[in-house]
Amino acid sequence: MPDFTLDARLAADSFALGAMRLCDIRLMDDRRWPWLLVIPRRAALTELDQLTPSDLTTAISECTFAARVLRAVCPCDKINVGALGNIVRQLHLHVVARRADDTNWPGPVWGFGEREPYDTPAQRQLVADLRARLFPARTVQ
Amino acid sequence: MPDFTLDARLAADSFALGAMRLCDIRLMDDRRWPWLLVIPRRAALTELDQLTPSDLTTAISECTFAARVLRAVCPCDKINVGALGNIVRQLHLHVVARRADDTNWPGPVWGFGEREPYDTPAQRQLVADLRARLFPARTVQ
Repeated sequence: MPDFTLDARLAADSFALGAMRLCDIRLMDDRRWPWLLVIPRRAALTELDQLTPSDLTTAISECTFAARVLRAVCPCDKINVGALGNIVRQLHLHVVARRADDTNWPGPVWGFGEREPYDTPAQRQLVADLRARLFPARTVQ
Repeated sequence: MPDFTLDARLAADSFALGAMRLCDIRLMDDRRWPWLLVIPRRAALTELDQLTPSDLTTAISECTFAARVLRAVCPCDKINVGALGNIVRQLHLHVVARRADDTNWPGPVWGFGEREPYDTPAQRQLVADLRARLFPARTVQ
């Protein structure tokens, strides 16, 4: 199996939060919505149904854990989960905290307007809060 | 646990294809995209992470099986999977076959334009083809 390398666009658009057993967790650099990326470290996959059953269960479990953490850190009305990949083909899941007063509610986050990068202090605090709950005591979940 | 009743809007916007072990599978009545709904028969749930771990594994397995069937019946460039629920809160997953020449590619299907119902012959054939592969010999997967 070839080595896993994170897609360059995913890397450029988001910050690393840490690595779970199967997936890297990243924060999208878009302050319009609290938005995590959950990326299985499996090279050359593009579709959820290409994961082995065991990897699929792990990836979805890590995804729902990430959803719970995101909801705890960023109170919201709904979590949106998606695996699209129409632009960036490397398999990745989106976990987005939505509020009824947010940008484009109740429409989707994908393909809407332009990304609005965090300013540094807001990003630093959110990254710290998410890391503390995603990776307590720096242990891998 | 209260009995499961399908949300009225999901019922009105889609056709029943059949029932898997956990989920109902339905075809969205929108000929712009081949689009399945995968709906766990669990009352009063709105978020993926509210499913028990066992139900979550079953739901995702039924979802990926539905994705493979949809790809086989409707050749496509990408499968989009999503659990949004910003409008209809009853927990449901979308499995959509996307093509690079389809409506709104590479943008998402959700919230785009108006639903375009099937005309009857096209719908009948697609429903028959999907049912034959989703439920071969009328057995529950």
